[in-house]
Amino acid sequence: MHRGDIRTPAFMPVGTAATVKAMKPEAVGASGADIILGNTYHLMLRPGAERVARLDGLHRFMNWDRPILTDSGGYQVMSLAALRKITEEGVTFASHLDGSRHMLSPERSMEIQRLLGSDIVMAFDECPRADRPRDEIARSMELSMRWAQRSRDAFDAGGDHAAGAALFGIQQGALDENLRRTSAEALTAIGFDGYAIGGLAVGEGQDAMFATLDFAASMLPADRPRYLMGVGKPDDLVGAVARGIDMFDCVLPTRSGRNGQAFTWAGPLNMRNARHAEDTAPLDPRCVCPVCADYSRAYLHHLHKSGEMLGAMLTTEHNLWFYQALMAAMRAAIGEGRFAGFMRDFQRDYGSKPPP
Amino acid sequence: MHRGDIRTPAFMPVGTAATVKAMKPEAVGASGADIILGNTYHLMLRPGAERVARLDGLHRFMNWDRPILTDSGGYQVMSLAALRKITEEGVTFASHLDGSRHMLSPERSMEIQRLLGSDIVMAFDECPRADRPRDEIARSMELSMRWAQRSRDAFDAGGDHAAGAALFGIQQGALDENLRRTSAEALTAIGFDGYAIGGLAVGEGQDAMFATLDFAASMLPADRPRYLMGVGKPDDLVGAVARGIDMFDCVLPTRSGRNGQAFTWAGPLNMRNARHAEDTAPLDPRCVCPVCADYSRAYLHHLHKSGEMLGAMLTTEHNLWFYQALMAAMRAAIGEGRFAGFMRDFQRDYGSKPPP
Repeated sequence: MHRGDIRTPAFMPVGTAATVKAMKPEAVGASGADIILGNTYHLMLRPGAERVARLDGLHRFMNWDRPILTDSGGYQVMSLAALRKITEEGVTFASHLDGSRHMLSPERSMEIQRLLGSDIVMAFDECPRADRPRDEIARSMELSMRWAQRSRDAFDAGGDHAAGAALFGIQQGALDENLRRTSAEALTAIGFDGYAIGGLAVGEGQDAMFATLDFAASMLPADRPRYLMGVGKPDDLVGAVARGIDMFDCVLPTRSGRNGQAFTWAGPLNMRNARHAEDTAPLDPRCVCPVCADYSRAYLHHLHKSGEMLGAMLTTEHNLWFYQALMAAMRAAIGEGRFAGFMRDFQRDYGSKPPP
Repeated sequence: MHRGDIRTPAFMPVGTAATVKAMKPEAVGASGADIILGNTYHLMLRPGAERVARLDGLHRFMNWDRPILTDSGGYQVMSLAALRKITEEGVTFASHLDGSRHMLSPERSMEIQRLLGSDIVMAFDECPRADRPRDEIARSMELSMRWAQRSRDAFDAGGDHAAGAALFGIQQGALDENLRRTSAEALTAIGFDGYAIGGLAVGEGQDAMFATLDFAASMLPADRPRYLMGVGKPDDLVGAVARGIDMFDCVLPTRSGRNGQAFTWAGPLNMRNARHAEDTAPLDPRCVCPVCADYSRAYLHHLHKSGEMLGAMLTTEHNLWFYQALMAAMRAAIGEGRFAGFMRDFQRDYGSKPPP
C-alpha cells in the first residue's frame, strides 16, 4: 500500500504509544510531517501487536493514514526493559510496565512490525552504549549483522506485507571507523531499501557524532535513504544533513514542548522563565504555525507555570511546525544549491557554534 | 462590546485558569459553546488581574472571542484558600498556590472582573455549606445580600465596562424556602441582568437540589436568565431545565474527560474498563463530534490506560460536544413544545431514575 511520499531530508515525529504525545494526528499532518515513527517495544507491550492487528492496524487505530516507520524494539528493550538476557536467538526481558516476560528476536520483530502494518520496517539490532570496550562493540555489531540477515529473511517471508513495505538495515559500530565499515559492508551485501545509522546520539556529544558521521554516512549507498536514528537538536539536524543524512526521528520537539521549551530560529526558549510573563510577541516572529498566529509568549508562560495541559499541547504543536519548517528550509536550500550558505545563516541566528 | 448571542438553556464549559483544560479554544467553539466561564479566584492569583488587563484582557489572552462569564471568587475562596477571615468588608485569605495574602470584597471582585474584561460579571457572595445550622445560613445569606448591593454599586461605577457587560445577582439560602424567598426579594429589589442560584450542588444530592429548585427558581424573575451555578451531571441539567433554569456551568465534562469518563446518550462510560479494549465502536453512535468520527473506544481505552495526554484531549472534546448536543436537544424540544417527552426519552436512554 502506498500511503504517501516522504520528502527528504525528513523529520519523523515520534508516536511512541500510538500517539504523538499531546497532538491530534491531523495537527501532526498539518505541521508538514510526511511520516511518523512508532515504537515496537511499547506497542508490543500495550496494546499488543496482535490486538492492533485485530483492530485493523496501527494507521486505523491511531487515525494516521500517511506512512509509519516502526523501530525494531532493539534499542528500547536495552534502555527500558528489565532482566534482559541476550543470546544469539534474541532477547528475553521483563516489561517495564508490569514485569511480564517477553521475547524479541529478528523473526518476532518482523512479525510485530507486520502486525502493526508498518510502512518502513527496521531490522532488529542490538545497540550497545558507545562507551563500552571496543571488543564488546565489535561483538555486538557482528551479532546485529547476523540479526540483519535474519530480519531480511523473515521480512521477505512476510508475503503481502513484504511486497508493500520497505525494510531498512541499521549500521552499528559506535565511533569506530573500521567497525562502521564492516557493518556497512555486511548490510549492503544483504541489501536493504534504506540504511540507518544506529548507536549515535547516546551521550557521545555532537562533536563525536559529527566526526563519526564524517566517515560513517558515506559508507552507506548514496542511492538509498540514510536515516540517523534518535537525532536530534535543530543544529544536530543541520550538521547531519550537511553530512549526507536524509531522515531523522527524535522525541525532542514533543518532549521539550511538554516541558516548556520552545524551539525558534533564534534558539530555544524556556517558557517558564519570568521574562516571558508580559511578552505579547509570538514564540517566533518567523513562524507561520497556528500557535504563533494566535498566542503570546505571555500566555504560554502562564500555561506552563500553571501546569495546564494546553501549554504542552501548544508548545508541542509549535515545535513540530518549527522542525518541519527547518526540514523544508533545508530541502529548499539543497534544491537551489545553497546549503552551505543556509547552514551559515542558521548557525548564526540559532546561536550554535560555527562549523569547525 | 457585544461578543455574541447565548442560546438558552446554555451550558458554559469551565476555563478556570484562562484555558478550558486540554482544549484549544477553537475546538471549544466548534463544540457549540456560546460562552465559557473563568474563575476570578484563580485568575487574580495567577497570572493576576492587572497583568491580564495589561495584556488586553482575558479574551485576547486566551484567544476566545465569544462571551466569558466570570464568577466572583466567593465560592472558590471558601473552597480553596487557606487562613480565611470573613468580615463585613470582605474576605482576606492566603493563596493556595504560594501562601501570599490577598483580599476579596464586592468592590475588589467587581474591579477584577472589569480588569479581566468579563461579559457577565457575578456579584460577590459567600457560599456556606448547605449542612450548616439554619441561623448560620441565614446570616451568611444576609451578608451576601448586602454584598450584592455593594457589587451593584461598584459595578455601576465601572464606566465603559458597566455599559457593555451584564451583572448577575446570586440567590443564597441553601435548602430553606423562606431564606431563598428573602434572598430573591432582596436581589430583585436591587435589580440585576440575570439571577443565579448559588449554594446548591455542594453535596446535598439530586433529590434535595431538585426539591429546592422546585420553589427557588420561580422566585426569580421569569424575564431574566436563571443560572444554576456549578451544575452538573447530564440528568441534573435535564431536571433543572424542567424546573426553569437557563444557564449552567460545571467542570464535569472536562474533569471527567481527563479521568477517562465519557458521557453518552446511553449513560457514562469508564474508558479504562477492559471491556472497551477491542471495541471498534465510537464512544457514542448518536454523536456527531470529531472524536466519534475518527476514533474507536478501543483506542480511547488504550490512551487512558497508557496515561497519554491525547486520551484526556479526545474524551474532553467528546464530552463538551455531548453536553452541547444535550443543550441543543433541550432547546429544540422546548421550542417545539415537547420537553416532557424529551425528558422521558432521555431518562429512559440515559438510565437515570424516572421523574418522581
